[in-house]
Amino acid sequence: MELLQTNTLQYAREKLLDYLLEKQEIKTLGLMDAEGQILAEDVRSICPIPHFRRSTVDGYAVISKDTQGAGESIPVFLDNIEEILIGHEAKCILKSGQCAYIPTGGMLPSGADAVVMVEYCEQFDSSSIAVYDSVSVGRNVVNIGEDVASGAVILKKGTTLRPQEIGALASAGISCVNVYAPLKLTIISTGDELVPLGQVPKLGQVRDINTYALQSLAKKCGFDVVATHVLMDEEELLKKVVSESMEQSDFVVLSGGSSQGKKDMSSRILNELADQGVFVHGISVKPGKPTILGYDKKSNTALVGLPGHPVAAMIIFELIVVWVKNRIVGNDDNKHIYAKMKTNVGSAPGKTTCQMVRLIDSQGEYFAEPVFGKSGIMSTLTAADGYTLIDLNKEGLRKDEVVKVFLI
Amino acid sequence: MELLQTNTLQYAREKLLDYLLEKQEIKTLGLMDAEGQILAEDVRSICPIPHFRRSTVDGYAVISKDTQGAGESIPVFLDNIEEILIGHEAKCILKSGQCAYIPTGGMLPSGADAVVMVEYCEQFDSSSIAVYDSVSVGRNVVNIGEDVASGAVILKKGTTLRPQEIGALASAGISCVNVYAPLKLTIISTGDELVPLGQVPKLGQVRDINTYALQSLAKKCGFDVVATHVLMDEEELLKKVVSESMEQSDFVVLSGGSSQGKKDMSSRILNELADQGVFVHGISVKPGKPTILGYDKKSNTALVGLPGHPVAAMIIFELIVVWVKNRIVGNDDNKHIYAKMKTNVGSAPGKTTCQMVRLIDSQGEYFAEPVFGKSGIMSTLTAADGYTLIDLNKEGLRKDEVVKVFLI
Repeated sequence: MELLQTNTLQYAREKLLDYLLEKQEIKTLGLMDAEGQILAEDVRSICPIPHFRRSTVDGYAVISKDTQGAGESIPVFLDNIEEILIGHEAKCILKSGQCAYIPTGGMLPSGADAVVMVEYCEQFDSSSIAVYDSVSVGRNVVNIGEDVASGAVILKKGTTLRPQEIGALASAGISCVNVYAPLKLTIISTGDELVPLGQVPKLGQVRDINTYALQSLAKKCGFDVVATHVLMDEEELLKKVVSESMEQSDFVVLSGGSSQGKKDMSSRILNELADQGVFVHGISVKPGKPTILGYDKKSNTALVGLPGHPVAAMIIFELIVVWVKNRIVGNDDNKHIYAKMKTNVGSAPGKTTCQMVRLIDSQGEYFAEPVFGKSGIMSTLTAADGYTLIDLNKEGLRKDEVVKVFLI
Repeated sequence: MELLQTNTLQYAREKLLDYLLEKQEIKTLGLMDAEGQILAEDVRSICPIPHFRRSTVDGYAVISKDTQGAGESIPVFLDNIEEILIGHEAKCILKSGQCAYIPTGGMLPSGADAVVMVEYCEQFDSSSIAVYDSVSVGRNVVNIGEDVASGAVILKKGTTLRPQEIGALASAGISCVNVYAPLKLTIISTGDELVPLGQVPKLGQVRDINTYALQSLAKKCGFDVVATHVLMDEEELLKKVVSESMEQSDFVVLSGGSSQGKKDMSSRILNELADQGVFVHGISVKPGKPTILGYDKKSNTALVGLPGHPVAAMIIFELIVVWVKNRIVGNDDNKHIYAKMKTNVGSAPGKTTCQMVRLIDSQGEYFAEPVFGKSGIMSTLTAADGYTLIDLNKEGLRKDEVVKVFLI
């Protein structure tokens, strides 16, 4: 049995990120396919928004000076010279003493500098309007470029496109965008004990969980899962499949059993196939110790050996693979919730402990209640809303201590 | 101009939910397509998990009594009678004085009730092992059904399926699940001023934003957007399209301009086509006042007239349509973040104010900084992380007041 030093979570993350920093392929998507994607470049407007002065109310476009002194009982009278139609250019040029009817969204005519709401106006005779309000310059008007100036950056590189960003792009007439292409990932589950979903496991056998759980997690986090394999623990077969997967993947994720023999085999294979070798031989994270990481420069592929236990495999995937992927595209904005620990929790000093918690909403603050379970047991994860990381230098968390909870 | 009383947000939500409560169609999905979906029924296990006693470590399966008194310097000696292989049934029946090698995940043999870690054992001679640790019953063993008992509810109706739930279902051998079918939605944007994305708007014209922003929002929230239409403001045409859309949709969402003439037209059309009529003629929400809601019992369709301004349209869609959709499937778990207001904010008394905010992470707590902007301006939404609702009975929020922020 080879004894190797374990690395910290921080070392594992940053070392892998160092190798993969340049891994940014770009693809062009139509606007309606871009929701949830991350912009690979600044997007600038090609014209001001709006590109004409627009009324925000139904009313009368006026020259604001003309309304000075008008009030609830003292109207001013203005000649109504045009009914501006929505979607059409305003034709008239307003002179002092004149006004024009304008609907919400309509274009202000030249000369006008404000709009009086229709509620403060009254038809006086066939051609004139009594105005019972005085308005200042710009009242009820959106100016040219007030939303977005021409040439301005509308959205920055690294922005995650939410529906409102899609709307902003549409308003600027941008119909396709350059976003980061999803990273390609192959999932390989190994184990003589694994049977596929449809098969009834005999004594000693278990159903393959990792292929489904990891694939689902990877897709949710924006990876392109190019292939999944369930293999027996045969070294040559495994080496062949890993090697082929490296050609078509950015990440090859192997999850084997947690027995020492299997760990040694995975480590041997990854070390042999990665030209930069295995640089993490176990990490000081609980759960997740038997994690190995390697990098192959030639194919520019990260090789990740996850623990075999499904819970630990999912946690390490989240803590390392997803973390690195987010950093590659410049997204370090992993929104967390602050919560107060409901009880004391012990941790393993010298290891970063990933503690599952359930959130309790207590009117104005959240409490985090620890969820415990052996690492082979899925219900630890299904009962949890998220996790908090306990620093490797700490011995645990105190009741009422405020922690960051990352939702899962 | 017809004057109609506005309704509260709460009334609008609950009245619409009342009409739609029974709107729960169910569909069956394969496990790998079910992530993010909501279970439409309890899922029970058909067998215990695990279905055999499993070791959590590499070591020797023993009868715990045999190890009593063993310690670092006082071994007990046991006959090693089998090497249990992963994925295979343990054949032997352990008697006092015997042990069997077992890998992590291996099946405990009959008779054994604990496992000693390999680190505490030593090969003594060809057939016997020196054990330097005493273990209690159940040590390093997962019992039958310890993860999930046979027949137990693994996941409850209404559960959102995350990757870990997919894993839990896989572990129970469940390959397809009944989830709520997404609700069908048609989006109709109206306005003589609208031009499609690819076209350069003339003076007075604007690009259609709502079709893109609302479609993107609806898809993100799990709706099936069956059709989108961009139409001129022609009453007969609009009536025809709404009427046809009702046949194939659960929600027909109309977003028109915000001028009174357009509002009246939408109201007339929806009132005519909905056999239960329009029951909300404007709501006391800022922004979003010109919202109308109707219901047609015959086709079981909700008719929603949104404000024309894109920001208000998105907010009302989120506050009413998404809220109702989540409640229909029993999901009222809209995770929010608590934050302290960074500044005082005024609101419109008598109206629920939807205040956009930017979150500032301040080591242990979030601050919410208000984002202001006219309602026609998309950048109000793109600059915001979320919103908070200011109660209609309040005049605003005080600096340092703790509010719920709903992420957008």
